[in-house]
Amino acid sequence: MKQNIRNILFSVLISSIFSIGGYAQIERVEPPFWWAGMNKSEIQVLFYGKNIADYQVSLQEEIPVTGIIKTENPNYLFVSVETEGVAPGMLHFDFQQKNGKKFTREYQLKSRRENSTTREGFNSSDVIYLLMPDRFANGNPDNDSVEGLADKLNREEKGGRHGGDIQGIINHLDYLEDLGVTAIWSTPLLEDNDPRYSYHTYAQSDVYKIDPRFGSNEDYKELSSELHKRDIKLVMDYVTNHWGTEHWMIKDLPTYDWVNQFPGYAQSNYRMETQFDPHRSPRDHKYCVEGWFVRTMPDLNQENPLVLNYLIQNAIWWIENANLDGFRVDTYSYNDKEGIAEWTKTIMEEYPNFNIVGEVWLHDQAQIAYWQKDSKIGAIQNYNTNLPSVMDFTLHNAVEEMFAEGGGWQRGVMKAYDNFVNDFLYPDINNLLVFLENHDTNRFNEIYDQNFKNYRLGLTLIATTRGIPQLYYGSEIGMRGNKEEGDGDIRRDFPGGWAGDKVNAFNPSERTKQQQEFHNFTKKILNWRKSAEVIHKGKLTQYIPENNVYVYFRTLGDKKVMVVLNNNEDEQVLDLKRFAEDLQQNTSGKEILSEKPINLNGELQIDAKTPMIIELN
Amino acid sequence: MKQNIRNILFSVLISSIFSIGGYAQIERVEPPFWWAGMNKSEIQVLFYGKNIADYQVSLQEEIPVTGIIKTENPNYLFVSVETEGVAPGMLHFDFQQKNGKKFTREYQLKSRRENSTTREGFNSSDVIYLLMPDRFANGNPDNDSVEGLADKLNREEKGGRHGGDIQGIINHLDYLEDLGVTAIWSTPLLEDNDPRYSYHTYAQSDVYKIDPRFGSNEDYKELSSELHKRDIKLVMDYVTNHWGTEHWMIKDLPTYDWVNQFPGYAQSNYRMETQFDPHRSPRDHKYCVEGWFVRTMPDLNQENPLVLNYLIQNAIWWIENANLDGFRVDTYSYNDKEGIAEWTKTIMEEYPNFNIVGEVWLHDQAQIAYWQKDSKIGAIQNYNTNLPSVMDFTLHNAVEEMFAEGGGWQRGVMKAYDNFVNDFLYPDINNLLVFLENHDTNRFNEIYDQNFKNYRLGLTLIATTRGIPQLYYGSEIGMRGNKEEGDGDIRRDFPGGWAGDKVNAFNPSERTKQQQEFHNFTKKILNWRKSAEVIHKGKLTQYIPENNVYVYFRTLGDKKVMVVLNNNEDEQVLDLKRFAEDLQQNTSGKEILSEKPINLNGELQIDAKTPMIIELN
Repeated sequence: MKQNIRNILFSVLISSIFSIGGYAQIERVEPPFWWAGMNKSEIQVLFYGKNIADYQVSLQEEIPVTGIIKTENPNYLFVSVETEGVAPGMLHFDFQQKNGKKFTREYQLKSRRENSTTREGFNSSDVIYLLMPDRFANGNPDNDSVEGLADKLNREEKGGRHGGDIQGIINHLDYLEDLGVTAIWSTPLLEDNDPRYSYHTYAQSDVYKIDPRFGSNEDYKELSSELHKRDIKLVMDYVTNHWGTEHWMIKDLPTYDWVNQFPGYAQSNYRMETQFDPHRSPRDHKYCVEGWFVRTMPDLNQENPLVLNYLIQNAIWWIENANLDGFRVDTYSYNDKEGIAEWTKTIMEEYPNFNIVGEVWLHDQAQIAYWQKDSKIGAIQNYNTNLPSVMDFTLHNAVEEMFAEGGGWQRGVMKAYDNFVNDFLYPDINNLLVFLENHDTNRFNEIYDQNFKNYRLGLTLIATTRGIPQLYYGSEIGMRGNKEEGDGDIRRDFPGGWAGDKVNAFNPSERTKQQQEFHNFTKKILNWRKSAEVIHKGKLTQYIPENNVYVYFRTLGDKKVMVVLNNNEDEQVLDLKRFAEDLQQNTSGKEILSEKPINLNGELQIDAKTPMIIELN
Repeated sequence: MKQNIRNILFSVLISSIFSIGGYAQIERVEPPFWWAGMNKSEIQVLFYGKNIADYQVSLQEEIPVTGIIKTENPNYLFVSVETEGVAPGMLHFDFQQKNGKKFTREYQLKSRRENSTTREGFNSSDVIYLLMPDRFANGNPDNDSVEGLADKLNREEKGGRHGGDIQGIINHLDYLEDLGVTAIWSTPLLEDNDPRYSYHTYAQSDVYKIDPRFGSNEDYKELSSELHKRDIKLVMDYVTNHWGTEHWMIKDLPTYDWVNQFPGYAQSNYRMETQFDPHRSPRDHKYCVEGWFVRTMPDLNQENPLVLNYLIQNAIWWIENANLDGFRVDTYSYNDKEGIAEWTKTIMEEYPNFNIVGEVWLHDQAQIAYWQKDSKIGAIQNYNTNLPSVMDFTLHNAVEEMFAEGGGWQRGVMKAYDNFVNDFLYPDINNLLVFLENHDTNRFNEIYDQNFKNYRLGLTLIATTRGIPQLYYGSEIGMRGNKEEGDGDIRRDFPGGWAGDKVNAFNPSERTKQQQEFHNFTKKILNWRKSAEVIHKGKLTQYIPENNVYVYFRTLGDKKVMVVLNNNEDEQVLDLKRFAEDLQQNTSGKEILSEKPINLNGELQIDAKTPMIIELN
């Protein structure tokens, strides 16, 4: 409140200085439209135009204008309107200047999609396919470079734009459906006008607009619609922490404190520990949260209620407009803690069954669990993010090492077991994202030198343990990528995504034998998992690994699956008596990978470096 | 209850079979005496003698006998008496047999020491010196081997008895006082009649008796008394989890389930994770908790109320009898969870200001914090140990590595910083034991090859951070010991503890230059810490390490100490502006190790591999 009063005073001062200038059209209205019947019924509309703050604004309709906020920049006007009970239709804002000059601006309240509020987000019945649109497939070569956007096509450079786009994704939805994925998470698609590295699109310049090099807002809606026809969900990669230096608002700041200023540039120390360290220096904490991620990413100040509300409305707008099934939130734990909790809570109040997974890249389960909704760990500091889902980064650490290790007290498959013992720290273990890799890490098939047997073990683990498996595009054909070679190397082009590619790995007949081997296995396990409710929701029981063999069960009602991971370079024989609690009277089952019947009397033989998924009869 | 009824039925059966045999004297009464005015006023006295259960027992005094429990073994009788309001003096138990044969047994209720209830346990104002009595000093060569106890003196063998004893400790109390320690924790002293490795004394055969090779119960009381004259506290090493196979009760079990039986021998899997893993197999958990630690250590069944009560009374008996200031509890987290919580609670109810530190040897702060009293982590599983203090094993892991490491994202002194960020998981950070090593780990001076500079850094860290520092005997003269060479190697004899030792390092004039260097530093920092209340209780504020230099402050009222650890092989210069929040207006201080004044304007220069402890003016 104090904030706003200060801003208004500033505004009076500045607008009296600058009002001698001319008055332009309204250049931007954000959100560009809204919907009738929203839970968040008070909408704050931003009008942007030269000296717009010099106008009196009113609504023609008899609808309450609940707030008009001017800032120290006369080009901004934030007008709040209470839409509760208002029918869909057009609103009309009248703008009038002291000298009598006036104009009217229409504003649409659309009708909502049926059951929009109750939309169900991604969950543990899903397998999420993470892709980078610039690197997946180029469906429209005409938009590879676009006038007005600085970074042009340069496929020769690992960090350049390669031309992939939304049409490329749409063109391969049959491929994805056949593979067995049930959700896709695409890295960001909103406009990023950075002159370099714009391909990753985390330095956005317009958050109401799909980057024209990826397509249009309509293309994105078509992607959503085409996915839903195939029962595949769409997860948007949302960035609350920062925008790009080229963002239009960054170039004409609404308020000095729209972004965190020190003053002068200050980089984040990236020490997320300061978010909860009881011994932290306040200065260290400030640099973590308010320091900029990099020079090209001004850090948004979510303590400013105008900023926070802007981010909330933008997020809701995308859900409603593009019919989304979830968010992945970038650098979640770098945000202002209270602000991001409010952002998350408001979205989840609007869509109670939606899902949001935060990137909380920490290496300790208590620290990760801290960030999940209703965390008992967060509650120690009276903190609740309201964030339904977090990423199981400690499992990721484990899978990066375990398959190259023999047995030992804390080695090999013990690392998986030891990860799951701390599951009691998480309020909702079914809402953890489990993954072998992502677009910021080494590729699994790089670490293990495209060892197919390790891929089988790794994928079986994440596909059958608790949580929501997330694959990374291309791993299903064994793609490799080394982070030490730069981010571009772990984000290589999917072969066949571009006309003229030597090999088209989307096409089974063109795949190498090795690619086919990876693909077959991935497709098999994913398609089996689709309907395996016992994996989606079943209770997990794990047995202490012996001799680098990990055995666990999933149980739901009278359904039971036994998973065995033999991480040894030689065959192993298990005495099944140890598992009597779970096997009970079962004496046979079916191994779903080999499709062979299995005798569960006495002993079980497992081939070297092999997973078994046994459905008990 | 069901248990007891079954036992009584058993008893009737067995006693009618065996009552034809002769009747012996009562061989043992435990506890051998008790005190009037105890909070735990109902005392359960165990009478042991051949067919003792065949007797009717009554009290001459008009005091309620609240329970008489017979077990399946007729040689045991457990008689409960309510002593509330009873004055100190002699009670008389009458034993009468069916045939009229009778005898009387006296039982003393002693007067309590003044202020016994309110005794204050060790706390963060203390520095604890951990010693192994067999390896510290041999004060009485006459008790090195004792008739009736199998393991005889064998100083040639690393795992043999070396002859150290209580008199040896008493003889060196001036040395300890001068060094600046304010508490000693001796590894166990109770009788251990194992034929091998009895020197460590964790396989006890009589828990009401000091091992005669260490001395007598009276010697132990004298040790306590002599320590207290010097304001040094005494911490007893208590073992609740197991006894030795030679324990007299193990050789004539009161009940089959006095110890955990499978049947047949089963070893613990040592996977303490099963104590909280929500996915655990019940079988795995059973083997962890009920499996025996080793063959020679039968695992006590704390689920049996007779066992639990026996352990509670024994523990209280030692506190009251030997005037103790604390317990260190061995293998705390291997015990039956409910039983050990009850044990701990009852003791802490008897002595509300006492302290107990549990050995919870885990490698994750949430897992360790689980075991501290009123833990929010334990509360997730509705568990509360009532244990006031736990050991900071993750800090121990850090100090084993950090001083050999250069800087890096998670290397060098970052490991200390990163340990403390999770302090919010602990309910009471001042009640954490901090240590460089103990009798089960590599010696610090082995890991760092007797590098004095690393010792200075390590000792400064544990002496000035939050918690209760614990030293390990001999490190103050740079002793080394390699666990890979066997436990005996990390438990070498203190040079000079034995008549005829080549060097007597207790005597300053005989110390090598190196020993003197270690000793001087230890003595200096410990004696300074004694009165440094700001270290005992002050708030800790830590700054993110830069360039492998760790800076933190302790603050209490208007007292403030700045600690700087330069872990680099070269000199460093700190820009003090970063620490303005803590330095405030202070422009000078005194460095307590060098005793030099320090200018705190602008920059601070720190020598290579050097700690500084600066008291601000």
